[in-house]
Order: sequence, then structure tokens, then C-alpha cells
Amino acid sequence: MTEKVVLAFSGGLGTIASLQLLKHRFGPNVITFTANLGQKSSTANLCRRALELGACSAHIADLRERFARDYIYPAVRAGAVYSSGYALAHALARPLIVSELVKIAREEGAAYIAHGCAGKSNDQVRFEVSAAALAPDLRVLSPLRENNLLRFDEVVRYCQDQGLPSTVSNDTRFSITQNLYGSSVQWDRAPDAYADVPEGVYRMTRRLSETPDDPGQVTLRFQGGIPVALDGVEKSPVTLLEELAEVAGRHGVGRLTTIEDRLIGFKMLEVYEQPAATVLHAARSGLERMVLPQATLEWLSVPAQRYARLTYEGFWFSELREALDAFFVKSSEYVTGEVRLRLFKGQCQVIGVRSEHSLYSQALAAPTTEGDAFAHSGLRGFMDTLRQSVQQPRAQDP
Amino acid sequence: MTEKVVLAFSGGLGTIASLQLLKHRFGPNVITFTANLGQKSSTANLCRRALELGACSAHIADLRERFARDYIYPAVRAGAVYSSGYALAHALARPLIVSELVKIAREEGAAYIAHGCAGKSNDQVRFEVSAAALAPDLRVLSPLRENNLLRFDEVVRYCQDQGLPSTVSNDTRFSITQNLYGSSVQWDRAPDAYADVPEGVYRMTRRLSETPDDPGQVTLRFQGGIPVALDGVEKSPVTLLEELAEVAGRHGVGRLTTIEDRLIGFKMLEVYEQPAATVLHAARSGLERMVLPQATLEWLSVPAQRYARLTYEGFWFSELREALDAFFVKSSEYVTGEVRLRLFKGQCQVIGVRSEHSLYSQALAAPTTEGDAFAHSGLRGFMDTLRQSVQQPRAQDP
Amino acid sequence: MTEKVVLAFSGGLGTIASLQLLKHRFGPNVITFTANLGQKSSTANLCRRALELGACSAHIADLRERFARDYIYPAVRAGAVYSSGYALAHALARPLIVSELVKIAREEGAAYIAHGCAGKSNDQVRFEVSAAALAPDLRVLSPLRENNLLRFDEVVRYCQDQGLPSTVSNDTRFSITQNLYGSSVQWDRAPDAYADVPEGVYRMTRRLSETPDDPGQVTLRFQGGIPVALDGVEKSPVTLLEELAEVAGRHGVGRLTTIEDRLIGFKMLEVYEQPAATVLHAARSGLERMVLPQATLEWLSVPAQRYARLTYEGFWFSELREALDAFFVKSSEYVTGEVRLRLFKGQCQVIGVRSEHSLYSQALAAPTTEGDAFAHSGLRGFMDTLRQSVQQPRAQDP
Amino acid sequence: MTEKVVLAFSGGLGTIASLQLLKHRFGPNVITFTANLGQKSSTANLCRRALELGACSAHIADLRERFARDYIYPAVRAGAVYSSGYALAHALARPLIVSELVKIAREEGAAYIAHGCAGKSNDQVRFEVSAAALAPDLRVLSPLRENNLLRFDEVVRYCQDQGLPSTVSNDTRFSITQNLYGSSVQWDRAPDAYADVPEGVYRMTRRLSETPDDPGQVTLRFQGGIPVALDGVEKSPVTLLEELAEVAGRHGVGRLTTIEDRLIGFKMLEVYEQPAATVLHAARSGLERMVLPQATLEWLSVPAQRYARLTYEGFWFSELREALDAFFVKSSEYVTGEVRLRLFKGQCQVIGVRSEHSLYSQALAAPTTEGDAFAHSGLRGFMDTLRQSVQQPRAQDP
Repeated sequence: MTEKVVLAFSGGLGTIASLQLLKHRFGPNVITFTANLGQKSSTANLCRRALELGACSAHIADLRERFARDYIYPAVRAGAVYSSGYALAHALARPLIVSELVKIAREEGAAYIAHGCAGKSNDQVRFEVSAAALAPDLRVLSPLRENNLLRFDEVVRYCQDQGLPSTVSNDTRFSITQNLYGSSVQWDRAPDAYADVPEGVYRMTRRLSETPDDPGQVTLRFQGGIPVALDGVEKSPVTLLEELAEVAGRHGVGRLTTIEDRLIGFKMLEVYEQPAATVLHAARSGLERMVLPQATLEWLSVPAQRYARLTYEGFWFSELREALDAFFVKSSEYVTGEVRLRLFKGQCQVIGVRSEHSLYSQALAAPTTEGDAFAHSGLRGFMDTLRQSVQQPRAQDP
Repeated sequence: MTEKVVLAFSGGLGTIASLQLLKHRFGPNVITFTANLGQKSSTANLCRRALELGACSAHIADLRERFARDYIYPAVRAGAVYSSGYALAHALARPLIVSELVKIAREEGAAYIAHGCAGKSNDQVRFEVSAAALAPDLRVLSPLRENNLLRFDEVVRYCQDQGLPSTVSNDTRFSITQNLYGSSVQWDRAPDAYADVPEGVYRMTRRLSETPDDPGQVTLRFQGGIPVALDGVEKSPVTLLEELAEVAGRHGVGRLTTIEDRLIGFKMLEVYEQPAATVLHAARSGLERMVLPQATLEWLSVPAQRYARLTYEGFWFSELREALDAFFVKSSEYVTGEVRLRLFKGQCQVIGVRSEHSLYSQALAAPTTEGDAFAHSGLRGFMDTLRQSVQQPRAQDP
Repeated sequence: MTEKVVLAFSGGLGTIASLQLLKHRFGPNVITFTANLGQKSSTANLCRRALELGACSAHIADLRERFARDYIYPAVRAGAVYSSGYALAHALARPLIVSELVKIAREEGAAYIAHGCAGKSNDQVRFEVSAAALAPDLRVLSPLRENNLLRFDEVVRYCQDQGLPSTVSNDTRFSITQNLYGSSVQWDRAPDAYADVPEGVYRMTRRLSETPDDPGQVTLRFQGGIPVALDGVEKSPVTLLEELAEVAGRHGVGRLTTIEDRLIGFKMLEVYEQPAATVLHAARSGLERMVLPQATLEWLSVPAQRYARLTYEGFWFSELREALDAFFVKSSEYVTGEVRLRLFKGQCQVIGVRSEHSLYSQALAAPTTEGDAFAHSGLRGFMDTLRQSVQQPRAQDP
Repeated sequence: MTEKVVLAFSGGLGTIASLQLLKHRFGPNVITFTANLGQKSSTANLCRRALELGACSAHIADLRERFARDYIYPAVRAGAVYSSGYALAHALARPLIVSELVKIAREEGAAYIAHGCAGKSNDQVRFEVSAAALAPDLRVLSPLRENNLLRFDEVVRYCQDQGLPSTVSNDTRFSITQNLYGSSVQWDRAPDAYADVPEGVYRMTRRLSETPDDPGQVTLRFQGGIPVALDGVEKSPVTLLEELAEVAGRHGVGRLTTIEDRLIGFKMLEVYEQPAATVLHAARSGLERMVLPQATLEWLSVPAQRYARLTYEGFWFSELREALDAFFVKSSEYVTGEVRLRLFKGQCQVIGVRSEHSLYSQALAAPTTEGDAFAHSGLRGFMDTLRQSVQQPRAQDP
């Protein structure tokens, strides 16, 4: 019986080499899958390309809607930003890709799925952990790792040796992975963390010198913690994210340079672009402060950080993440309202919040005149009781 | 025996009224204390003013050095930013002022200390909690509260009735409290949270249209989590904070509009300026990611948030805050190095980090050629073991 | 228009005095409500008693089923034990009583509800916070506090002065509050924390010298974190809790002496009996370790402690508690199975766990022979990678 | 140049086989090290034994004092109990053994250290992580793993094949690892988690039927969170721990059966004995509730759990553990006083606490008569203010 494999195929050099390596083992039984997750580079020709390179069957799917609705939006609602500031664009995409690969493997009767992730990436971990959680019976292959093509130059040489089309870009110092929600850079050599990041790595955000000289403004409406409208117009998730990324990127909003600890154990300088994410998290956070009681606000960062870390580490498909989502669905019940934000020269700032569920009362907060609805009479007793609780000396009993 | 009281006297209308009220009770035994905490308004004439208003003795002290070294810098090292984004400028100042009042009360043989905090402020809570912790035997008076002068207009009227000098500024819609580390606004009436903040409330930061059109850059050096040099020159804490506030403010960096839950139980729209704080926390955080192991980085926000909340709520003088400081002194042992930041049009961004204790290794992180010091051979086994731990089905035993 | 008040009436001296005090203000418009929460003392005659004492109408309700199902069981599922070890028997009862009072107030058109809680109790806080959350428009009265009957002897004297029936028990050194889920002691004078607790305070658990000399055993079955069967027989919540309390109490299980910080700010020596709670939490915890993945297990105490603290502090009716419950419903989906426990001389110990959702696999755990299903081949690589992540020296770059 | 290796040698079958395996590679250059950590089995003959088996040099050290003072006592002060209830006896011992091996390796000029840990144990991880942290330049060998002797029966067969002395005990179903602070079981085959644990696995605690029929009592004195006296007599750490383990074990105190997730990713039924640990943690916790302010008490479990997890996972030698210790040294400053505990039929219960730093005041807590030092006058205002903060309806502004 012939065995089949389904390879996640982005058209990048790593996946081209992986396809070639898998052909050596699986012969004509290599199936590819290409996901449209909103990357700017076209996916249109990738099926033809995969077939030319020897795939027996090439699948493609527009996953943008599912990505936005079932992955990005829950992460927005959860306030899921990793401790480095990373809004998890790729960490959210990986489990979705795996779920699609698994579906195809089931349909095609394949016992293997494969990825072309680079040797030291976090994405290989996320890929394999997601696959183990979703389909423990499927076997996962990492052709580059298994064939010791660990480094970019080795992959290039292998492609050349195999007579594969040379797709190396002009600037080989880095390559970019990008989707609807953000982009990140893979470096050719680890950069100096003190030096400037080369401007060429950015795809989604303008350099500051090219941003408009007048501030932009957007208004976002949320319903239950989920974005539903931009500038007063209801939008589908994909449209909202794309339009928001466009306007934020135009103002240079969403660049992040930070150091992260890779899941396999070393520090890396990461350069991200996340224009829509930056605006959405700022907006949701500003709105929350208006509509959530203090006890909830104070605690919210605890599950948010756990959610972000689970996602970062590849545990999207886990019971804990699902239970955390149940928490956030409930805790965000009243996170409904509008947020005005100013976008200007790389900065995104909340400048107005309003909500039909507002807990901010101008009457209560009013410090003056007849408008004050706050009952002051209890304050003296409140203070006395508080003070008494603080001022207890030790060893008061004789 | 005559009883004495020491009043914290800022020269603001509330403290002028408080002084007058205390005179009714203590006669000639009202002592004032004025702290120089780096506020822009001059404190030079405040002793004379207090004496003119009937104080029997008027103390003044330049507390800037102690404020910077013993309050602000530990908070910077601890990453102490409240969940709203507030860097705690006044929450840090209040306990210092109280400690000074207590010292003077001891010297002068006073049994009372007093404050002129407004009726709904957080500062009254911080004042009274600090006093209870430091000097449980001293009694604390809040003349405005005790005489039911709860609102600003009532205070104004009282002053006018008493023939006190009218010090109301032109714009009575708000007043500003400010020190070395930041400023905040007290409103005349609770603002609409959706409307623009009036530009006039800002003291420390330029409006964006008046900021330079070329990005600024600063370099900060930290030693053990504490800032020690600015742009390559070692500075005393006060000088560093003042100069940093100046350059950051010039670029419009450090404005924050947010909703907070006042300690006495209602939401308020707060407008803060915190130029130096914004830069310092961004810098320290960027540096930490280079020099701290992943386990520390991942956990650090937990004690940081507790530290910020203790400070916000007035529990600076508490055993828990001191124990947290012991933690941060130790955990920041290697937080030494330089951070380059770009300041531009309201935004502050880390653009370079280096450290003699760096855990970022270009050799380990290098994804290519001979330079790669990372041992790849273990990855397969690492992944297999990780995957095995994830893919365990339930109820495996027969 | 006449105003009415609904008083929570337990028949204790405090509530008798409160009823009398309310009559002075509300005349014939005092309504009482008595809850059967499974206390051992009979509630049968309390309506007649309230009417004799002047209530215009006396309600009674058997709330045991709702208490067990909607309050106790969610707390069991959440692992809600306060940091002192207190399983929250009264903290869970108070919001239920308040919800019933509010319902009666609505039906009877009363604008007030009232309680007879003692002057320094936590229950007064829980009562008033629950009422504020559920029915902000109703006014809450605390007749003892408002009439300065703060201390037990003052209440006794007032009752005697008013010619009310003397209901003081023989032993006036303490009184006991008890329900289905546990009991606690109110002391006449604060006890010496180093001395033995007088044996007479216990109602639900035998003294060790009177417990059986042979160990007892119970088997509990949980479904989704909720207890459903005892010793193989499905039981309604009330029956299960009552039978479990009986058998555990017979073996002396569930006594706790601890120091707690009262919500109004001082430490108190608390003596609790919580026989059923002790067994249920031990059982659920033992089962969880078998059926929950490590990531969930490791994190579970975080929301559990928040849940317990919210309940302890009176915030049962809060959005955060409800969101935490949504979390626990989901996280407990697989907490189904049986737990065997040994009860003996005050000790409760888990001695066996099994589950149809077990993640414990004898095949994987087997350390020997052919039975070992664990793949060892990856361990070397796992260890090498782990070690590499640890051993990175600082400042590796030249 | 000849290379040398230092092997941790306990005299167990795994270490005998490891010694033999190392001889094949290192010839006469195998050095052994045996630690006396208070295990009941004699270590006296182990040096002779190692030399007979071919070691070129055999070291032995009595590490009990360092173990107690520098590892166990800090863990007691930190309240370090893993979420399963495990008090970390072996997790604390492993880093100490490694530090000693490293010292000997330095003295003897060895480039390798080695352990004989079983194939699926946590201790192999702790060993290798500790070594990586302490001595990244040393190489770590695991001869059993490297030679594929993964299972107990394979080790036995290898020893027999090599003509090594047969040291298999009568009962081969399990073996026990034990030290001053506790014991644990290694099973021959993974046990049924629902069945009774065989009585034969216990070394430190009596079976309940053989415990005294009269309760025992111990009094512990702590100073700054550290135990200093037992029953009124100051004791060195080792003596205190040994005597306490003896009396607690006599009463059957300290048995724990629980399921844990092994660090390499599967669940195991663990059976521990930890008599001294059980009493010490109960005592310290009881004392803390008397001497620590509420804010500290409420937070303490957070760093305690982190400390326990770090230790469990092998990260004793980490900056985070050291920073947590700095926290606990400070937070435990007042954890000084005496605790009385009753030991009976497997149960350990705190029955009395007193301290020169007590925050429990009978005068403040007194609910009656003239003795009440609590100021009630503020309660009304306290309650009004609290209630106001809760009862705010949403969307109050028009």
C-alpha cells in the first residue's frame, strides 16, 4: 500500500526543498496545501507551481474568514499579547493551517503531514504540537530537519543542486512571513541588537518619513469584546482587519523590535509589524476600563497572559485555552461600545471611549456643584476603618 | 497643654482653606510643611505665604533627591506601572510627604498631621494609609472633609467668605498637580470620556503640532535596573529625571488619557503626563528582554503588578512592598546595559539594546552558515518528546 | 404611604433584638424571612415565633436544594477554599439569603431589607455587598449597628430590658452558626490562640476519642466536577451533602482552627467544622490530577483562589465570579470519575482514583519489560536541547 | 591525555551498572561520589564497594547539614510544596549532589560527570539542568540511557551478564529512594491508581494500625520562617529534621499518594513519605496567619507556587529562585513564634499559635464588654462607601 503525505506549501524556498525531499520518499504521493491567510504575495499560482514541482495534487483554500473570526478575534477579546509585545500573528495562523492539513489528510487517506519550517523557528514547534493535539495518529515530517538542511544557505544549495528554480530574492539578508494580522522577519544572520533595523524588512507599515503629516483617526465599535464596525460601518472580520491594517500601516503604526526566547531555547531579535493588532488591543483595553468593574479589570491580565503564552507555545488546541475562552466570552459580555483613536507618526492613542454599558458616570465623578451624585457621608467612616486596619501594632496582647 | 498640628501645604486653594480651618481649632499652633518634589510652580514663597496666613511655623524641604532615589527609581526597577498605564507619580510622592510630616510632628511635638486633599481623591487615601502605617499614634485630620467642603466651588466660596486671597486661575475648569515624575488633572466637572481633552491641561509635554519634525534620540544606561546615565553621561537621579522629562516632553512623549477606579469606588477619567516614566519603563523593559532568562521574564509581570497596585492603593509602607523590593533588587542584578530610544511625535520606541550581561548571542541565533553555535542534533528528540506529551488520548488503559 | 422592611430572621438573639428595633421604626410593617439551609436547629417554629414577636408576616423557605446545587456545588467544582482553609460555608449562604430577601421585598412592596449580623462579622459585609449588587434600589438596615448594640452583652441587656424571651444558652461563651456545608463559632470573648479550643463548640464532628476505631471509606463519583454519587448510589445534592457530612463527622473529619483577617480589618481566631467540604475538595483534587493535562493543573489554583476570595469578600454576585464559573464549567468537562477516600480519626485521605477520561496510562508509565509504551528515543535530544537552553553564558558575543 | 568521569554512586543497581558501563569507556578513570543525605540505608561501605567494582577513587561526604540548612529550610520558609502535595525531598537533593559532583570534577580534573538515574525519572532532568546551570563546560553522561538500558529488567539482566553482584531485593516490585526529608517509590510496573498501595513501600511512617492510640504533640519554634527549636529545645537543622521525622512517622503522619506529570511528559502515580515536611509546612502556615498582614498572606501562595515549580523542574540554580528567596527572607522577617501541633493516626493539626510579633489582638477581636478596642464608629461609613461602589448601574449618564 502506498503511503501519502500532505505538505504545507507556501511557495517559499524551504517548502520547495521540502517537496523535493518528500518526493524521494513518497514518490508521486506528495499532496500540497496552500493557505490564503491574507499574505500580500499572491497565492494564485502556487497550485500550478506545486504540480510542476511534482505534487500529485495541490489544494488551496482561502482561510482568511476563519482565521479572522475563530483565531484573531478571540485573541483580541482575550487581550492576548505575548510579554514581548508580540500580538501572535503567526502563532495564531499555525494551528489553523494544521487543522486544514489534517482535514485533507483524512480526505486523501494520508498518514503523514509535513512542514517546511526553518530549523530554529517557533513555528515548527507550534506545527508539531498542534498536530499532536488534533491528530495524534498522524505522523509529522519535517523534511529539512530530517535531512539536515538546517540553515538557509544549505537549503539554497540543495535547491540549486536539484535543479530547482532559483527563487532567492535580491536581498538575501532576510525573508518575510506575513498574513492578515502581521508580519515577521527571518534573518540570514542574527542581527546586532543595538544597530538599526534595515528599513527593507517592513511590508505593512510605512517608514515615519513617509507617513502623512496630519494625524489620522479611526473609530472602532466592539460588541462583547469583538470588533464589529470601523468608522461607523459594520464590516466582516476580514474586511475590518484589512482596512484597519491599511490605515494604521499608512501612519506607521505597529512596528515592534524586541527580543524573544525561542521555544527551543535561545534569544532572538524579532522584528514584527502588527498594525491592526496594535490598534485593536489599544481600543479594546480603553473600552474595558470604562465598562468592566474594578475587580475584573484588576484580574484580567492574569488569564490574558496565560492565553498569550499558550498560543505562543503552540497550545492553541488545548483544554486550558478553551476554558480561558469560556472565561473571556463571559467577562466580555459588556465590552460593547465605541473607541476613537488617533494614528500619527507611528503612534496609536485612544482619545475617546463611550458605551451603552458604561460604568463611568459623570454624575458620580463630578467634583463640583450640585451635580455630585457621590455620597460623601460615609467617607470618614471608610477612612477610619481602613486606617484602623493598617495601624495595628504587633504583639498588642500583654 | 496646647495641641499642635502639621499641615501639608502646597499653596493650592485646598490647603489655604485647610490652614484657615485648622486655625479655628488649633489657634496659633498650626505648622505647615511644603515639599519641593520638582513641581514647576515655585515653592520659594510658600513659607512666607503660610506665615502670612497664620501658620506659627513653616517648613520647606527639597525632597527631590529622596523622591528620585528612594521612590521613583525602585518603582522603575520594579516595572511598577498600574494597569491603567499610570506610572504612579503622585502615588509615589504621597508616602514621602507623609514621612516628612511625621518627622516634623515628632520634632515639634505635634499630635496631629493634616492634609488638604480633595474630597474624592485617591491621595487622601494614600495619605491616611501611609500615616497609619508610619505613625499609628498620630491623628490625621482632613479639614475640608471634616468641615464638609467637599467640592471645589465650596472651597472657593469659603476662601472668599474668609477674606482669603483669591488664587483661582483663569481657567477654573481644572487644576494640575505635578512633580518631577508626572502630572495629573483635577477636573472642575467630570469630563465626557468621548470628547477631546482640552489642550490646556498639559504642563510637561508639547502638543504634537509643536513637536520637532525630526526624531530625537536618547540613550539610557541602567545598572542593576536603575538608570545611571543619559546619553553617555552619568547623572544624579534628579538631573537624569529632569533632563529626560524635558527631552521627552519636547517630543510630546508621555501623555495618557485613561479611566481609573478611584479607591473610594467610582470611575474617573484621568489625564496624566509622564514623559520620563514612559521612556524609562520602555527602556528597562527592552533591556530586560536581553539580559533576563526566559523563566524570569515570563514571571516578572506578576510581582510588578502587585507592586504597582500596592503603591496605587497607598500601601508603600508595607511589608509586602518591601519584600517585593528585595525580590527586584535580586532579579535586576544583571539589568545593566544601554538602550537607545527614538522619541518622535508622541511616540517612544526602543531601537537598540546592548549589555555586558547579554543573553542574546548572535552565534546561537545565527540561522546560517558556519556561524551557527546552536546544537541542532537534539531537536528531533526534543520534538518527539514534546509531541508525545501532547498526544496522549484519554482512557488509554483497557 | 407606609414603608415596609424584610428582616432575615434566624431566631437568634441578634435577630430578635433587630425585630424589636425595627418595630420601633416600621410599626406593624416588619416582615421576617427564615431560611432552612440545613442547620441542625429546627426552623419549624420560627415563623410562629416571629409573629409572636410582632412581625406582620413571616416567611420561611427550604433553600437547601438551591444552596447545594447553585452555590455549594459550583464552589466545589471551582476548588474554592479560602487561603485559611475555610471552605466558605457561610460566605456561600449569605448571597442566597439576600436573593430571597430581595424577592420577598419585591413581592411585598418593601423598600428595606435588614439583617441582625453581629457588629464585627464578615457576614454583615457579605450581606450588604450582595444586596447592593442585586438590588441597588433597596435600602439595607443593620438595626444592631445603627442602634449601637455592637456587643453581645449589650444585645442581651436590650432584650432583657424589652422583656423579650431570654434565649441565652447555658454556655454563653460562644454561639454557633451552622448550615448544610459547615459551622462556625462566634465567641463571647476573643480566645487565646495558643490554648485548646473548648470541645463544646463542635456540632458536626465527633471528638477524636469518640470516633470509630476502624477506618471508614467512602467512594465519590463526580461528573464534570460536580459530585453525583456516594458509595455507588446517585444522590441529590442535599442528600449527598448530608450523608457525607454525617459519615465524615462521625470520623472527626473537617475541623479547622485558623486565623483569618476579618473584612473590616482585624485578625480573628476562627473555628470551623466542614466535614463534607473537606472530603469533597480532597476527592475532586485527587481526580483532577488524573484527568487534567499538566498545563491546566498547574494553572488551576490561580482562578480557584480568586473565586474563593471573591466569595469570602461577599462578591458572589459579580461579573468576575460568573466569568470564573464559565471557566470552571469548561475546564471541568472531563472531571468525571470515582475517588475512594479513607476517613479515620480526623483524617481524610484519597486512596484510589479512576476515570473514563483518565490521562494516567499504565502502559506509558510502565518502567519495565515489554509493556512500556513510552518512546525513549527522543529523550537524549530532549535533554540536550533543554540543557543547551540553560547553559548559555552571558555576553557570549565578542 | 586521559579523560575522567565522576559518577554519582548510590550503590543501587542503576549506579552499579552505570559504573560498569563507564569503565568500558573511561577504563581506570572512573571516580565515584556518594552522598549521605540522611537515607536510612548505610553509606558506610559504599566507597569500598565502588573501589571493588573498579572505581579508581571513591568519594563520600556527609551533606546532611548543607542539605538541611541551605536547601530544605529555605524551601520550608518559602512554603514550597508542589501542586500535587509533594514537598520536594528529592528535587531539593539533586542540585546539592550535582554541586558536589562539580566540585570533585574540578578537583580531579574530570571533564565529565554522570548519573545512574532511571530512564523516565524526573531526577535525570533535574540532574542535567542543574549541571548545565552550574558547570556548562562539563559534559553530562547518562550511561543507562546512552546504552539503552531503559528499563529495570534490562539493567538487572546487564548486571547478571557482566557478573556483577546481584543486589536485587526480595520484593522487586518497587525500590525506594529516601533521604532526611522524604522518600519516594520507583515501581517495577505502573500501579493501578484505584487499588491500595502495598504497605511494604513505606520506610518512614508507620501503618495506622501500628500507630500509638494516644495523640502525640510537638511544639515548633520558628525564627524568620526557619525552624529553630523542637519542644522547647534548640536543635541543629539535621537533628530537628531527624527527630521530627521520627515522631511524625511514628504517628503515621506524612503519607501521600498522588498523580504527577513527569517532566518528560506522562502521568505517574507517586507515593511519597514526608513526615517532617508535613509538620513543618502546617506549622509555618499556621504561624504566618498570625504574624503576616492580610495583603502579604493573600499573595504569598503566588511566589510559593513558583518556587515549588522551579524546584520540581530542576531550576534550583536559577536567578528566579534566588530572587524569590530574597523575597521570602524579607517577607518572613516576622515569622517568629511557637506552634503546637497534634499528631495522631496520620493526621497533623495545628492546635495553638503564639508569637512575639503577633498581629492577632484579643482586645481588637473581643466581641464583648469593655474589652473591645475596635472602633466601631467608622463601620457605617465604611459599609456605605463599599455599597456605593458596588451598586453602580451601567450607563448612568443620559
